[in-house]
Amino acid sequence: MKNPFKKITIIGCGLIGSSLARAIRARGAADKIICADASADICARATALDIADQVTSDLPQAVTGADLVVLCVPVGAMGGVAAVIAPHLAPGCIVSDTGSVKETVLDALEKNLPDHVRIVPAHPVAGTENAGPESGFATLFENRWCILTPGRAATGDSVQRLTELWCAFGARVEVMDAARHDRTLAATSHLPHLIAYTMVDTAARMEADTQAEIIKFSAGGFRDFTRIAASDPVMWRDIFLNNKQAILDVLDRFTDDLSAMKDAIAKGDGPALHETFTRVRAIRRALEDVKTTN
Amino acid sequence: MKNPFKKITIIGCGLIGSSLARAIRARGAADKIICADASADICARATALDIADQVTSDLPQAVTGADLVVLCVPVGAMGGVAAVIAPHLAPGCIVSDTGSVKETVLDALEKNLPDHVRIVPAHPVAGTENAGPESGFATLFENRWCILTPGRAATGDSVQRLTELWCAFGARVEVMDAARHDRTLAATSHLPHLIAYTMVDTAARMEADTQAEIIKFSAGGFRDFTRIAASDPVMWRDIFLNNKQAILDVLDRFTDDLSAMKDAIAKGDGPALHETFTRVRAIRRALEDVKTTN
Repeated sequence: MKNPFKKITIIGCGLIGSSLARAIRARGAADKIICADASADICARATALDIADQVTSDLPQAVTGADLVVLCVPVGAMGGVAAVIAPHLAPGCIVSDTGSVKETVLDALEKNLPDHVRIVPAHPVAGTENAGPESGFATLFENRWCILTPGRAATGDSVQRLTELWCAFGARVEVMDAARHDRTLAATSHLPHLIAYTMVDTAARMEADTQAEIIKFSAGGFRDFTRIAASDPVMWRDIFLNNKQAILDVLDRFTDDLSAMKDAIAKGDGPALHETFTRVRAIRRALEDVKTTN
Repeated sequence: MKNPFKKITIIGCGLIGSSLARAIRARGAADKIICADASADICARATALDIADQVTSDLPQAVTGADLVVLCVPVGAMGGVAAVIAPHLAPGCIVSDTGSVKETVLDALEKNLPDHVRIVPAHPVAGTENAGPESGFATLFENRWCILTPGRAATGDSVQRLTELWCAFGARVEVMDAARHDRTLAATSHLPHLIAYTMVDTAARMEADTQAEIIKFSAGGFRDFTRIAASDPVMWRDIFLNNKQAILDVLDRFTDDLSAMKDAIAKGDGPALHETFTRVRAIRRALEDVKTTN
């Protein structure tokens, strides 16, 4: 990268944090990379992987002198981590994160961090169903969106620098209002995950015989459908607790629509089913076109 | 194939029918392959693809002298096709199908076909989101299940011959009661499709601004989730109309479970969400193990 950071500190060394460390190193985006994690076990594993210049569980020491700190912890842990590092942040330091919810995270950071830092929350829309530092890789963010939701404590320059960083990883950057981010992601990510989790749970609660056959014949749609239901439970718990209203709103729409489909099936209303399926196929094809042209 | 059929007639030349014709030819499973379709357009396209010895829209002529007839038409069309071909079927001819619902299809075939034929309904659990004769391919059934649901009009020999045929295509064959098939597939395939269709429809009904962003940021789960929502509308309409009760039963369980999740989110019940997500991840991993060992 043309204008690298001096010292980037990544807090939380799971899939996203460890991928970020690897991407920073691969792109020469910082003179020094520090990984910090509250877990001694994670620190030992990250050290063994040699993905940073230093790995530590001492958060205050880790952020001292950093010009960029990125919090890669579950959304519910952002405020606590911010409070711990607040007294140790240098003036002008950019503080960012990688959480999947942005309004509560922006609030938590603004509430806990001093006025002399620049707060630029970020959400790389990328991930896999695997967790832990071993699962990360440098190319995770390539051709994926990274959404920045700067609040009042950001400056044009800090947004610009963070944009350059994510672009260096091959991501496409979009700047957006935090509330709008949360509404959009509730529909594109949070509700689909909730539905997938619930569908697998429903199957798991069936009688043992049926359950065994569901697993056996899962290729009929169930397996594809549930691929996204294997992600980290703590991460997802925090997403649902922190984007409550937007998720409940879109969930209400979904349950209304599902109820209409149920009525159509119960009544044997073929034309209504056919009309919905035809409309949906057109939408799906629009998605395919987006995929092809991107 | 060691003991090929003399003349196999495939009625309905879409994704499944045309794949079946290609697989039969690839495996030498018949001396003669006839493809029949009521649509002149489909017949012209199948002729151009050269996937059968003869392509015709004359169903009575197509089945005359066949020792195996396979109906690859939407589930709701099975009874009508059976009635048309019934007077022209040779004694001992095996009549099968490839529908995704089995109890109503078995009824429709038994009701419309003469006693001197052998009825062995089949469901190859395979497919893609594409339709039409161009989308078929000979290896579609490899390593996929094919479930046979013979009724009272089957003989041991006819089930055996059909098993050999599907095994020749690389499929794994399971024989099962039709009602049990329908309950299992309601959970593994029909409900997941219904949910996927509904989720895409819910998104499509959002305000235009939000809709554009949903398409833009669909990589967050929505796109994966909706991959299965692009299948043929007529085929799926007929599945929902013909497996009504089993689908409504599992849908009721799902909506109860989803309602419990909604309550947990509304109440901010983190432990309940975490417990469900953890339980679900274990099930998902059991599926992964099945995949690895198969």
